[in-house]
Amino acid sequence: MPYVNIKVTREGGPDGTGPSADQKAQLIAEVTDLLHRVLGKAPATTFVVINAVGLEDWGVGGLPVQEYRKQVQ
Amino acid sequence: MPYVNIKVTREGGPDGTGPSADQKAQLIAEVTDLLHRVLGKAPATTFVVINAVGLEDWGVGGLPVQEYRKQVQ
Amino acid sequence: MPYVNIKVTREGGPDGTGPSADQKAQLIAEVTDLLHRVLGKAPATTFVVINAVGLEDWGVGGLPVQEYRKQVQ
Amino acid sequence: MPYVNIKVTREGGPDGTGPSADQKAQLIAEVTDLLHRVLGKAPATTFVVINAVGLEDWGVGGLPVQEYRKQVQ
Amino acid sequence: MPYVNIKVTREGGPDGTGPSADQKAQLIAEVTDLLHRVLGKAPATTFVVINAVGLEDWGVGGLPVQEYRKQVQ
Amino acid sequence: MPYVNIKVTREGGPDGTGPSADQKAQLIAEVTDLLHRVLGKAPATTFVVINAVGLEDWGVGGLPVQEYRKQVQ
Repeated sequence: MPYVNIKVTREGGPDGTGPSADQKAQLIAEVTDLLHRVLGKAPATTFVVINAVGLEDWGVGGLPVQEYRKQVQ
Repeated sequence: MPYVNIKVTREGGPDGTGPSADQKAQLIAEVTDLLHRVLGKAPATTFVVINAVGLEDWGVGGLPVQEYRKQVQ
Repeated sequence: MPYVNIKVTREGGPDGTGPSADQKAQLIAEVTDLLHRVLGKAPATTFVVINAVGLEDWGVGGLPVQEYRKQVQ
Repeated sequence: MPYVNIKVTREGGPDGTGPSADQKAQLIAEVTDLLHRVLGKAPATTFVVINAVGLEDWGVGGLPVQEYRKQVQ
Repeated sequence: MPYVNIKVTREGGPDGTGPSADQKAQLIAEVTDLLHRVLGKAPATTFVVINAVGLEDWGVGGLPVQEYRKQVQ
Repeated sequence: MPYVNIKVTREGGPDGTGPSADQKAQLIAEVTDLLHRVLGKAPATTFVVINAVGLEDWGVGGLPVQEYRKQVQ
C-alpha cells in the first residue's frame, strides 16, 4: 500500500522541458519494482505521482535553483 | 484545524479534462462538512486543496495509469 | 485514482488524544464515497491517508494553535 | 536537511496572476535564513518548493476561496 | 534537484513493525540511483523522505487497510 | 490563504531530539510574517505544519543522513 511522490525540477528530458512520458514510465516501473523487491509491496496497490516543478519555484542554498548553480560553479 | 489535499487524475468532468469548478466546489463543501460532523472541526479553519494530476504523471501497478487500464481490462 | 491526505490536530476524540479508530474509519468511508459520487472514482483505487499533527507543530495566525485560541477568545 | 513546501493561492503579485519571480526568490532566501538562524540548518541542504494553487482548487469554510470571501465580507 | 517521499503502511519488516533501517537505506540508495540513471539528477541534491503510516490511518476501498484485506480475500 | 509545511530532521534542539516548542513557535511566527510582508497574505488564514523526520527516514546522496555525513567529512 505504498504512495510515492517524486518531485523534480522541470528541465532536461528530450526537449529541455522536463522528463518525457517514457522517462516517467521508467520511473514508475522501477520505483514500483523497488518497493516490491525490498518490502514485498504489491504493485497493484502502489501509486506513484510525479510533479515537475518550475525552476523559479525550487530553491536551494537560499536561491532559486538557477541562481544557485551560477554561484556554485 | 484540518488540511485536506485531494489528488485526482486529470480526466472526466464535463469536457473530459478533469473536475469542473462545480464538482470541485462540491468536494470542498462535503469534505469540510464531513470533518465537522465526525470530528467537530470548524469549517472556518478547514483548508481543502485539490490537485488534478496528468495521466502520464500517475502510476499504478508499475505503469502509467492509461497503460495500466489497458492491461487490467 | 484519487489520493486523499487528511491532516488534523491531535486532539479531541474519545480520550482527547485525537480521532479514534472508528472516527478514522468513518472519514475513510465517507471521503471515498464522496469521490465516487461526485467524480465517479473507483473506491478500490482510492487511497486515504490520515495524519494527526501535534498541537505545537501546527501554527495559525503566526502562533502555535493553542496560543492562537487563547488570543482569539 | 530541511524541506519546505509553501502553497499559496494563485493571485496577487505584480500582474494579479500570483507571486513574481522576485517575490519567490525573497521567500526562498528568507525561509532558508530562518531555518539557519533558528535551527542551525545549512542553507546548502535546504530545499524550498513553492506551489501556486488555482482559486477554484482551494477551499476554506466549505467554499472555494472566492465564494468564501464574498460571504465573510 | 529531486525530492522523493515514500509512504508505506507500518507493517512487515524484520519484526512486523515496518521497514528496518537496512531496508530504508536500500530504498534511499536505489531510488537515488534511479533518478540519476533515468534523469541525470545529482545524488548530492536528491532528498528521500520515508514515512511509515499506521494501519488504521490508511484507507483503501473505503475501509481501513486491515478491514479491506479481510473483504477482498 | 497559504499552507506551509516545514520538514526537518529530528535532531538538534535543546536536548538533541529535535526543535523545542519555542523554536517551533519562532518558525511559525516568522514564516507567517514573511508571507504577510512579501505577498500580503493574512496571518489568520496562514497554516504552518512542522514535521520532524527520523534520521534513518531521511536520505541524501543515496545514503541515510548520518551515513552521508560520515562520507562527506
